[in-house]
This record gives sequence, structure tokens and C-alpha cells, in this order.
Amino acid sequence: MPGHLEILALPGIPQVRSGDDLAKLLLDAMKAAGLRLQLGDVIVLAQKIVSKAEGRTVRLAEVEPGDEARQLAADTGKDARLVQLILDESKDVVRVRKGAPGVIVVEHRRGWIHANAGIDQSNVNSGDPGQWALLLPEDPDASAAALREALHEQTGVWAGVLINDSFGRAWRVGTCGIALGSAGITTAWDLRGQPDMFGRTLEVTVVGRGDELAAAASLVMGQAGEGTPAVLIRGLASENSTATAADLIRPREEDLFR
Amino acid sequence: MPGHLEILALPGIPQVRSGDDLAKLLLDAMKAAGLRLQLGDVIVLAQKIVSKAEGRTVRLAEVEPGDEARQLAADTGKDARLVQLILDESKDVVRVRKGAPGVIVVEHRRGWIHANAGIDQSNVNSGDPGQWALLLPEDPDASAAALREALHEQTGVWAGVLINDSFGRAWRVGTCGIALGSAGITTAWDLRGQPDMFGRTLEVTVVGRGDELAAAASLVMGQAGEGTPAVLIRGLASENSTATAADLIRPREEDLFR
Repeated sequence: MPGHLEILALPGIPQVRSGDDLAKLLLDAMKAAGLRLQLGDVIVLAQKIVSKAEGRTVRLAEVEPGDEARQLAADTGKDARLVQLILDESKDVVRVRKGAPGVIVVEHRRGWIHANAGIDQSNVNSGDPGQWALLLPEDPDASAAALREALHEQTGVWAGVLINDSFGRAWRVGTCGIALGSAGITTAWDLRGQPDMFGRTLEVTVVGRGDELAAAASLVMGQAGEGTPAVLIRGLASENSTATAADLIRPREEDLFR
Repeated sequence: MPGHLEILALPGIPQVRSGDDLAKLLLDAMKAAGLRLQLGDVIVLAQKIVSKAEGRTVRLAEVEPGDEARQLAADTGKDARLVQLILDESKDVVRVRKGAPGVIVVEHRRGWIHANAGIDQSNVNSGDPGQWALLLPEDPDASAAALREALHEQTGVWAGVLINDSFGRAWRVGTCGIALGSAGITTAWDLRGQPDMFGRTLEVTVVGRGDELAAAASLVMGQAGEGTPAVLIRGLASENSTATAADLIRPREEDLFR
């Protein structure tokens, strides 16, 4: 248990384009800030730049909405083409609140329960606002693992890599950073069966540590114009965990709230 | 938007007893660590020490369970006296999963949706494990405000004060630190209507910043024997916000998941 963490925004990451080498952009930004990657470091990337680097941008003009998408779009005041993309990315529509703007909460193909299948239309393209959408990375855990490999190749250091996103929550106001992809980090920290300070066994303590790290990074990322999409968390012990962010998705059969 | 935060566990907080002066314990711990409170600092306290200082410990032998508590206890493998306390602290039982151990999710009198009304039996009393329970503070926002006042009185500095707790979440594995009480901090950060980097207006971005701060502090608090119940977050701009942690509770009528 470390007693001192630093959460450092990495300035100088340029606008990311499809095909960009994120490991290189990160290491350049660290170098410019006088930082060298070291054991125990966790690099947190905003989902958005990972999606952009992986070419997950879709032009809405190329989407043909079906009947379900048109109906849902009418109910929620959304663009029917955007709704078609949401449906294409999802296994199930979990909740709809009608209205303008309405809300569409889905179960994403990869299991996340969130609004709009995580599809974002902000900060996507400068020329034509509103005409583009950005899907989540195809496999964020794989993206994190590949980036971890690339960082190791260029520095010799096995750092942790986290891809975070902002999710709304049931019962709580506001979004919170969560771990969408992860490599090298203990994402779910299982304390069950450990004794407390007085020797009583802890009952139900699994800590969603990957999400807590993602939330901490969100604090310095910002959301709008001044956003910095990459953050260094320094001060953790090196873990080399094989855990993934998918471990933080509660299996449907254990979930009381679907 | 700060670019550099430090998350520092404050060592040397002793076992807290009913009536203890938390401001004094905190300032003593900071002094011993060579730290002086400064503008922008946020002090995060684990709910448990606030509850203990406020005498929220209950001896189970003094609780007489009623019929509803006995039935629910039988369904979930819990102590009926503990279940009576849970019901006493709650407005509504939201979900029950039968089994041993089962799960009781309630709406607390103050609006939180969480397991067991936040009542904890770990780390409560050394002499008689399992025979004591610790309720949440009566009014955590008031507790945070009082502590902020006391810290100001003794240092001249208006710091932010946050009381955090670990809540389970719908859809996600593991607990995450959340803001139970808050004073001086922008808990819900409303970015709606701000332009993104390309001038497109952000649609639905309220950031649950109080919860992100609480989660960041949880990273260095630990959960079991080695826990440090007080954390300093340094590097934020001073805010003097009048917001509270209650602002982060989603009103029932806006909630799609009850």
C-alpha cells in the first residue's frame, strides 16, 4: 500500500489521428516534461485518443438507420444515424428515458452498461461538427496490452497501462472515470478473507481499484477544451498483473440492477 | 484544471474514540509528517473515523430485532440485530439477494443507495469482534463542514474536507470510494453548455468530481489492517464551494435504476 501517489497530466499530446503511434506520442510528451518511465508507473489514456488512433471514427452520412433506430431517435431527440450506431455496438437496450434530450442506456457488446454505447460526438472532427461519431476501441484491454508492450520495447520498463472513460452511474449524479482497458494492473483487488485490524475477517471487500485509478486520472484530464488526454500515476508498486478491465464488469447473473 | 496532484496518506492517526477531536488528530499527524495545511488542500477522512468520533457505535446486544428484520436475516444469513439496524437507518429496501451471505441493498434515510445502510462491523472494537456495529455519521456534510471550520480556526486556512466511504456499484465489480460528506469542494462539476475543442457544445457532462476525489484518496487508504484513515490531496485550486456531497445523490425521480 503506497502512501504517496502523484497524478501528473502529460502536456503536449497533439491531436491524434488514425494510425498514430500512441507509445511514441506518450514517450515524446514525457521526455518534453523531463520524465522517464519507471517501474510502478501507470499511464492512463483517455479512451478518445485510443479510439482515434485505431480509426474508430464513423461519418454519420454513411450510416443508414433502420426502423428501431428511427423510433428510438424520435423518442429521445437523437440523430437516427447515431442511434443506429448505438444499437450496432450493443447487445441490449437496458433503459430508455424519452424526452429531448432523452437517454439510451445499453449493454455494450463487451458488457459495459452505459449511455449511448460510449459513442461520443464531441472533439471528433474540426471541419464538420456533429457529422462524425467516435466508437469505443474494438478491444480496450488488447489496446492497453499492446501499448504496454510497445512502451516496454522502447524503454525496457513494464509500466501499467489504463484506458479510461467517463461513465454515468446509477443513483449518483455526474460521470466518474472508469477503467475501460487495462494491462499490468490489479484491477479488482480481492481482500475477502483478510483479517481487519482486530482480527475479524472482512466479508465482502473486493476493491474496484482499476476504476479508482481511472477516476484519479480523470481529475487532471479535464473534459472540454483544455483536456489533457494522458496522465502518469507514479508511486504505486509494480504489479505485472494479468488482470484486465473486463474483470470489472459484473456478470449479468450476479447483477441485481438490470 | 490542475496538472499535478499529490495524494498523501497521513500516517500516525491513532485509534479514534467517541468524542475525539479529529481536527487536532489530523493537524498532529500532518505536523509529524512535516506538512502544513495550505490553500487548495483537500483532507479526506474515512467515514469510519468520523463515525467513531461521533459515537455512532452500537452494541448489538442492545438491539431487539422485529419480525421484518428476523425474516430478512433468515433470507440473507445475517444477524437479525444487524438487519434491524439496517432497517432503522433506511427509507426503503431496494433489492435483496437471498443466500448466505446474501445482500441487502437499501435507500438510506439520507438517500444513498448501498449495501447494509453503510453499517460496518469490521475494525469496530477490539474486545468483542462481531458484537458491535458502526453506523454512518448522522449528517456527513455537516461533519465535513464542522471539521472545515475547526481546521480554519486552528490554521487560518480554508481547506476542502471530504468524508469518503466505499460503495458497491451496479454493473461493476468491486467497491469504489465515494464522497459521503463534503465541504468547500465542487462535488458535481457542471460542464453542460461548454464548447468542446472544436466548438461543439458538450451535451451531458456533469462530472462527479467529489466521487473522483474520494476514489483517488481510497487508493492510499487501504481497507484492512494497514489502513490509513486520513489522506491529503494537494495541488487543486482553492474553491470555497458551498456544494455538498448530498448534491451527488441522484433524485429518485431522475433515476432510471430503482
